[in-house]
Amino acid sequence: MRILQVAPLWEAVPPPAYGGTEAVVSVLCEELVRRGVDVTLCASGDSQTRARLRGVYPRSLRTADDLADRSPYDWMHIALSLSGAEDYDLVHNHAGELAMAMSHLVDVPMLTTMHCLTTPDTKFVWDRYQGSYNAISYAQRAAMLAVDGGTFVGVVHNAIDVESFPFSDDKDRYLLFLGRIAPEKGPHLAIEAARKLGMRLKIAAKVDRADRAFYHDVVEPLIDGEQVVYLGEADGALKRELYRRAYCLLMPLCWEEPFGLVMAEAMACGTPVVAFARGAAPEIVVDGETGFLVNDVDEMVQAVKRVDRIHPARCRQHISDHFSPPVMASRYLTVYRAILDGMARRRVVAAPVPALPRVEADDEALAIA
Amino acid sequence: MRILQVAPLWEAVPPPAYGGTEAVVSVLCEELVRRGVDVTLCASGDSQTRARLRGVYPRSLRTADDLADRSPYDWMHIALSLSGAEDYDLVHNHAGELAMAMSHLVDVPMLTTMHCLTTPDTKFVWDRYQGSYNAISYAQRAAMLAVDGGTFVGVVHNAIDVESFPFSDDKDRYLLFLGRIAPEKGPHLAIEAARKLGMRLKIAAKVDRADRAFYHDVVEPLIDGEQVVYLGEADGALKRELYRRAYCLLMPLCWEEPFGLVMAEAMACGTPVVAFARGAAPEIVVDGETGFLVNDVDEMVQAVKRVDRIHPARCRQHISDHFSPPVMASRYLTVYRAILDGMARRRVVAAPVPALPRVEADDEALAIA
Repeated sequence: MRILQVAPLWEAVPPPAYGGTEAVVSVLCEELVRRGVDVTLCASGDSQTRARLRGVYPRSLRTADDLADRSPYDWMHIALSLSGAEDYDLVHNHAGELAMAMSHLVDVPMLTTMHCLTTPDTKFVWDRYQGSYNAISYAQRAAMLAVDGGTFVGVVHNAIDVESFPFSDDKDRYLLFLGRIAPEKGPHLAIEAARKLGMRLKIAAKVDRADRAFYHDVVEPLIDGEQVVYLGEADGALKRELYRRAYCLLMPLCWEEPFGLVMAEAMACGTPVVAFARGAAPEIVVDGETGFLVNDVDEMVQAVKRVDRIHPARCRQHISDHFSPPVMASRYLTVYRAILDGMARRRVVAAPVPALPRVEADDEALAIA
Repeated sequence: MRILQVAPLWEAVPPPAYGGTEAVVSVLCEELVRRGVDVTLCASGDSQTRARLRGVYPRSLRTADDLADRSPYDWMHIALSLSGAEDYDLVHNHAGELAMAMSHLVDVPMLTTMHCLTTPDTKFVWDRYQGSYNAISYAQRAAMLAVDGGTFVGVVHNAIDVESFPFSDDKDRYLLFLGRIAPEKGPHLAIEAARKLGMRLKIAAKVDRADRAFYHDVVEPLIDGEQVVYLGEADGALKRELYRRAYCLLMPLCWEEPFGLVMAEAMACGTPVVAFARGAAPEIVVDGETGFLVNDVDEMVQAVKRVDRIHPARCRQHISDHFSPPVMASRYLTVYRAILDGMARRRVVAAPVPALPRVEADDEALAIA
């Protein structure tokens, strides 16, 4: 089977620090190659992969602050990535709606993995899409706008490279907030919980341009450098060290988080997760076993007091069982085969979307009609 | 010959008010249809044409202020416009670099008419372009960044629908500034000239979002509603009335204007043009015959005092002879045939770009090697 993987140009694959989509693409490519699948990865030229790398532009765009306009690089990356797609059995698109639009010019089946959320504007592309797509969680699927185009082939949860995350059951007494400082991620609520608990909170997170005002107005005044510490954006090494020693990870989600890789990463390190029961959190955290699902800051405070009941080894086992490269790669291979067998060409009229599904060991999470 | 014309989605074709590219596309399509060419126009669905109209999105984007993100509509417009291009002999692209990027996915020759200027970022697309392109003036060609891709097939000057512009040799004593308020268009210099002359100046121009600060800080304080009047953006009817009665049009260009349709429109109405000798102005204005080419505000003031020596009928004749639909359509048909004959596949190594060329009646303005 020959698969053309198209990553966004925003971060390198794998990303040096933040970058969930590119991290998942990396894990998938490495595992597929390990299984003997012929994979070409279209990504920024500074990516690292055992797959065949096709890098149209040598750098990732997020840090390319010297460019006045990044769009032309993105256009060329997607167009030249898809040029010659006919040599492959399937295009697996992780780069969103521009590639979906261009799929009308390519005579090869496309699977789009939805890594973000649909918007009223991107719906214009989705309505006209003729390929297949999968969600990365049931929550994301449920939050998706109704669209007229595409064939939904099921939910495939993201995976992390479990082996690269260091396990420890020897924890320090600090709480951790990791990822991105933005209103929807709730860093201000994590700080509120830490204060009520009288515990230290370490924040390791990037601040996007769009969120600078939120950071300066809301978050920065709450950082005292003692109880609440801001460490900037964490690279892979710092991230692992922070997870490994953290008492627990706080996820006070204020939106329908499509996945939330940090939850899986923390648990892989044996660190429990206390998350608001929104978005994909109920699909990743097993309430009472690998952390707690709560509804507000007060419940979060009470849950943190019970974190010592959670077994670090159970956390890691849960991630190995359900969010590891072999699990994700097997599911994607099932999807690829289904598309190539033509099964997915029929539209799924009503895909089963459970309200708050628990991931079971034998749940293949595929809803192919 | 079957031609697929791809217009930008920014304005309707023809545009109700401002919109040089879409105006030229309209003139070209109507004239090609008149000559029996099979033309499909891909443009906003509210466009008006005698060609076959393919409208992916029903509205033009400039006034679609209800959209949070206009990019997805643009992506889909270009992709679906090019979908099925194989049914045509040639794609004539007026929509810029996104379509040039997608040309790698389309197996039909593409001619791109460059309506803007290249930038260090769009150069990334140009360097990889495998189609043909033409400039709309020698000045634009000279101002273009050196690019590694594409085949330059020559200069084809823009045209206007001369018959739709009312001629008059009975002029009022007001100066006219028309088009767009932006630093590079020099409205503040037109006001300075009008004040030195003690003459009225009518300004009819749009203000883009990016130029609002310039308007408020620099131009607005100079508008007194008496000597200097601001009329907002002119629609087709107001524009023609303003041209018809104007003493002359002022073009104090502060950049390398790629063309400047307003100069041709004013002259078609018998109105002389006093322009800074920059960009394409020397290719459109015949110095001393249809207006004056000057270098600064003081020379502009002196030139306006000599405008009574210019014959309105000579102005209109110049436009009919050189910038009319038949002239432009003939030149594009020559280019189309050259591309289809394969002549243009050879790269033009050093296209002749004269310093300040005068347009002669027999100058076909084609530099096909």
